[in-house]
Amino acid sequence: MGWRARLLALDGLMPGMDEAGALAWTSLADAPQDAELVFLGLDGDRPCFACVPPQGDSAPRMANPALWAAMAALSPGDLAVYGGARSLVDWHARHRFCAQCGGATEIAKGGWQRNCTQCGAQHFPRTDPVTIMLVEHEDRLMLGRGLGWGEGRFSALAGFVEPGESIEEAVAREVLEESGVTVRDVSYVASQPWPFPSQLMIGCHALADDDTVTMDETELAELRWFTRDEVKAALVGGPDAPFAKPPREAIATHLLTWWSAK
Amino acid sequence: MGWRARLLALDGLMPGMDEAGALAWTSLADAPQDAELVFLGLDGDRPCFACVPPQGDSAPRMANPALWAAMAALSPGDLAVYGGARSLVDWHARHRFCAQCGGATEIAKGGWQRNCTQCGAQHFPRTDPVTIMLVEHEDRLMLGRGLGWGEGRFSALAGFVEPGESIEEAVAREVLEESGVTVRDVSYVASQPWPFPSQLMIGCHALADDDTVTMDETELAELRWFTRDEVKAALVGGPDAPFAKPPREAIATHLLTWWSAK
Repeated sequence: MGWRARLLALDGLMPGMDEAGALAWTSLADAPQDAELVFLGLDGDRPCFACVPPQGDSAPRMANPALWAAMAALSPGDLAVYGGARSLVDWHARHRFCAQCGGATEIAKGGWQRNCTQCGAQHFPRTDPVTIMLVEHEDRLMLGRGLGWGEGRFSALAGFVEPGESIEEAVAREVLEESGVTVRDVSYVASQPWPFPSQLMIGCHALADDDTVTMDETELAELRWFTRDEVKAALVGGPDAPFAKPPREAIATHLLTWWSAK
Repeated sequence: MGWRARLLALDGLMPGMDEAGALAWTSLADAPQDAELVFLGLDGDRPCFACVPPQGDSAPRMANPALWAAMAALSPGDLAVYGGARSLVDWHARHRFCAQCGGATEIAKGGWQRNCTQCGAQHFPRTDPVTIMLVEHEDRLMLGRGLGWGEGRFSALAGFVEPGESIEEAVAREVLEESGVTVRDVSYVASQPWPFPSQLMIGCHALADDDTVTMDETELAELRWFTRDEVKAALVGGPDAPFAKPPREAIATHLLTWWSAK
């Protein structure tokens, strides 16, 4: 199968792109002899693989400006392939040892598993559920600016689902922690994988009991209520926009668009 | 604080219970000197802790008959406390080493984190999103009997969300893999934490395009369509029930009840 198999071109964890702005692919022959390969699926009858980056800096990589630019250029289909591949190879690169016994692990099941060479424990790629929520009060939305974000940039509050919580409980706890506001009527809107490094974003809507906020200053730089007209104007963009909207690819933009049309 | 602090009584990962069938608590003084302690929260002004089991057998523990019996006896509040505590101490017991470098890890942040003593990597408790879905076709539901389940026991199909998937994509892939059926109009119904070992169950509903099934025999022993009347009769139970319903505590029972009343 070697001559037909394709290898996703990655520079570290960044996508390689061809002149047309599509994901670049090379031949499996280009992979280092001892490389760990992850099977991504079939493209027609051609198997597609990605290579686990060599050992080295293995901190989880969040989205950054260069990555946002690459994501904005890729088609939705390419973005899905890249996102899934990136999440998997990054997980492998950060799980070369067994959390149970400290022994070396090796890739198994085409890259969808790692097995410990010492105690035999099986390890599976991790996906972390994260809630992201539009909190509404009298036709206004609560949006926050994270610490370190650029001036004027606002988005929905978000946080990891903790052990022992339902989605609805996670939304209520997170909003209370970050804003001091209690919410009711939490409802699910949409979900999206977010492979930086490995989140499942769960988009929700909730009604606030009150609009008095007590901002968590360890997480947020600003916390404000925006009217429907302000949200609509931000989605249109331009110099007069009341705030800078999240990137097109983020589920937050989808949620804001959904709410503004509601 | 020592004299006021409470320690959750655990026998391995099983709950200790008092004569009234409530969770048993002891004093923090009962914890071994070198035990790793997880902070569970405050009960009024009394801090509550659980102890990480000593090193030993550290395979993840699924729900089993003894556990089902204990769960059926606990109140919803106690069940939530026990579930969260169990999931956390089990995660600590299975993460004594760093997946990145193999070094020893130590408990941090009151048990909501482990830090590597060698490379400094931070590790966080894991929660795995799992979709569980009612697949409907012309007012009938597709339910399956897993390999190894007792005769007559049926429940909703379920499977882990994989890297790169949305909730809706995971539902469609899982149903296709297990039954050969394609679905449309996937919608979210409810969620529930399931700490055996650490799942977030995401309950969904979907419409099947067709009722011709091709069962995945590596996962399932039986796969059948049940009418609304059959589902209602199963929820009532008794000797004439068309199938044995899932346990009361499982989200599958909630989903079946929701559908039968729809």
